[in-house]
Amino acid sequence: MATTFNRTIWLDKTDSAIVHIIDQRKLPHVFETLAMTTAQDAIAAIADMAVRGAPLIGATGAYGVYLGLLESGEEFGSLIGRIKSARPTAVNLAWAVDRVAAAVGDPQSSGAADRALKEAEAIVEEDVEICRQIGVHGVMLIEEIAARKQGPVNVLTHCNAGSLATIEWGTATSPIYHAHERGIPVHVWVDETRPRNQGASLTAYELGAHGVPHTVIVDNAGGHLMQHGEVDLVLVGTDRTTRTGDVCNKIGTYLKALAASDCGVPFYVGAPSPSIDWAVRDGLKEIPIEERTGQEVSHLEGQSGQGVTRVRLTPEASACANPAFDVTPARLVTGLITERGICPATEEGLVSLFPEKA
Amino acid sequence: MATTFNRTIWLDKTDSAIVHIIDQRKLPHVFETLAMTTAQDAIAAIADMAVRGAPLIGATGAYGVYLGLLESGEEFGSLIGRIKSARPTAVNLAWAVDRVAAAVGDPQSSGAADRALKEAEAIVEEDVEICRQIGVHGVMLIEEIAARKQGPVNVLTHCNAGSLATIEWGTATSPIYHAHERGIPVHVWVDETRPRNQGASLTAYELGAHGVPHTVIVDNAGGHLMQHGEVDLVLVGTDRTTRTGDVCNKIGTYLKALAASDCGVPFYVGAPSPSIDWAVRDGLKEIPIEERTGQEVSHLEGQSGQGVTRVRLTPEASACANPAFDVTPARLVTGLITERGICPATEEGLVSLFPEKA
Repeated sequence: MATTFNRTIWLDKTDSAIVHIIDQRKLPHVFETLAMTTAQDAIAAIADMAVRGAPLIGATGAYGVYLGLLESGEEFGSLIGRIKSARPTAVNLAWAVDRVAAAVGDPQSSGAADRALKEAEAIVEEDVEICRQIGVHGVMLIEEIAARKQGPVNVLTHCNAGSLATIEWGTATSPIYHAHERGIPVHVWVDETRPRNQGASLTAYELGAHGVPHTVIVDNAGGHLMQHGEVDLVLVGTDRTTRTGDVCNKIGTYLKALAASDCGVPFYVGAPSPSIDWAVRDGLKEIPIEERTGQEVSHLEGQSGQGVTRVRLTPEASACANPAFDVTPARLVTGLITERGICPATEEGLVSLFPEKA
Repeated sequence: MATTFNRTIWLDKTDSAIVHIIDQRKLPHVFETLAMTTAQDAIAAIADMAVRGAPLIGATGAYGVYLGLLESGEEFGSLIGRIKSARPTAVNLAWAVDRVAAAVGDPQSSGAADRALKEAEAIVEEDVEICRQIGVHGVMLIEEIAARKQGPVNVLTHCNAGSLATIEWGTATSPIYHAHERGIPVHVWVDETRPRNQGASLTAYELGAHGVPHTVIVDNAGGHLMQHGEVDLVLVGTDRTTRTGDVCNKIGTYLKALAASDCGVPFYVGAPSPSIDWAVRDGLKEIPIEERTGQEVSHLEGQSGQGVTRVRLTPEASACANPAFDVTPARLVTGLITERGICPATEEGLVSLFPEKA
């Protein structure tokens, strides 16, 4: 049985010099938390991927600045630089760390650590509120479907756009959790999401921990389920959303969007405004796609009698390719669920919710 | 390095009481052959899935009758019944065994075993010829693309519709092998094909054994590759083709057909005439889809330091669903490659090649 959890990062209730995180590397097989007491603990958690997901990485870095200030000795600029370089390409990390550093001001003045803690907690609460609002808006989609059908509303999701990638609620999962809390019967088809299996390991785990009925399927199965009316709604996250509504998300999202379009299934994206890149218009042409190591395709980790074991799947002589994301054109997206409401996946739709970006 | 092989089943060159097969359960990690000398050997090979693929299962059953006749004692009807029930739902197995039994006639008369051997070899040669002809017709598609582009022709395939599923050549792979033999540069994107990974294990293995350049990808990646012009042609097999050109094939085929259609990539199906079910018109409504055990989703086998090891991927409390096939509507199929030629995926197209079915 999965262990229930509320947040992915939290200050110790009695000792404010300790910040706890869930060690996500061991999920879904073992639920363990890590207690961080130094900046180096936070750096290691980020670099070794005990935490992942842009908002959570940012929050961990923010708390890292606070923990570093509790320690003595290190020059502040060096501390900031070390934390920011824990994962060099994580934009959210640099943003959060810089924000805490600005709030600290003079690190030698009194109350510096308190100011860092306050800013880290503000960053955390802002992310929680964005995710909560996505749920408040998105749950209406589930309610509408529930009102006109018998039995549970079947939602299909891909990868982990869940609470484990954020602080609480998640993005794609937030409407699901809100529906579940309101007593609307909901069942989730969880794409395993090869090659890193974030669906089979993380999304399945957290849905189980929150008591949400769900079924894991291979990434190949979603189209068949949609053809046969077994999916009422597709809900996914986004790594980067263009001004025009193109959605760059985990590899394979595009295939599910095609099937949803072909089968008349609504396809919605939980899109917090920080994921919107207002400078990009054509996702297919302008967003570079990270090509990760082929070893994520050729090898896989799972639980054997000997604990977590790594196995090879492919012939040793066979090459593997591993594009990590794809772009779903806006024409296949029914709508974007932002913290300010739901809009069509178009520039007009987005600007209607974010007029300051017009 | 993969071991080169020509056929998946063959009579020993010096001792005609021995029939050899490749033990496909150990691929791609170990290449081993099994020597069958009794009907029970053939039954075990089929039941334990040392051989798989309808044509190869049929051929193994056919040779099983021959081996049984070389042994003494068992009543012929009992022998036939035992072999046919090795995999009860394999239509090809019953068909091949009955055909050999009919050719044998009186099992007590002289030359009975010789007649069984002759019929088994006829079944084998007919399958080889059907697959060869699919290649002869299908290679023209690859030649046409090669004539108008620089560099290799990139073919994407799903599952294993290869020589390992047949006797030689395969169906989807036959045009590829013919192109390779003619010196046309060809490169194959191999979908790993979860949950049983027939692509990552079998297709990658046999392409390597035949020296065909290839790259294994997760099932999620094909759409992205098609969006970026990295796929010139999709070639898949079929488990059952309707009179109207709908294609029932391994789960996930439909998603690749959608992407091919969206990206303007030709999508062809190697469809031997025995796979055509002339009695079915609507694949989506009429073809029942086998739901296999969820353990194929929750668990996976691969090569670890301890040999072939089984690992769990999902949380223990999570349910898994495992539909094994899906139906690609004819509207998404560019053409069917049969042993008599290539035709549109329509009733008119099929009947033009098989007028006896009009």
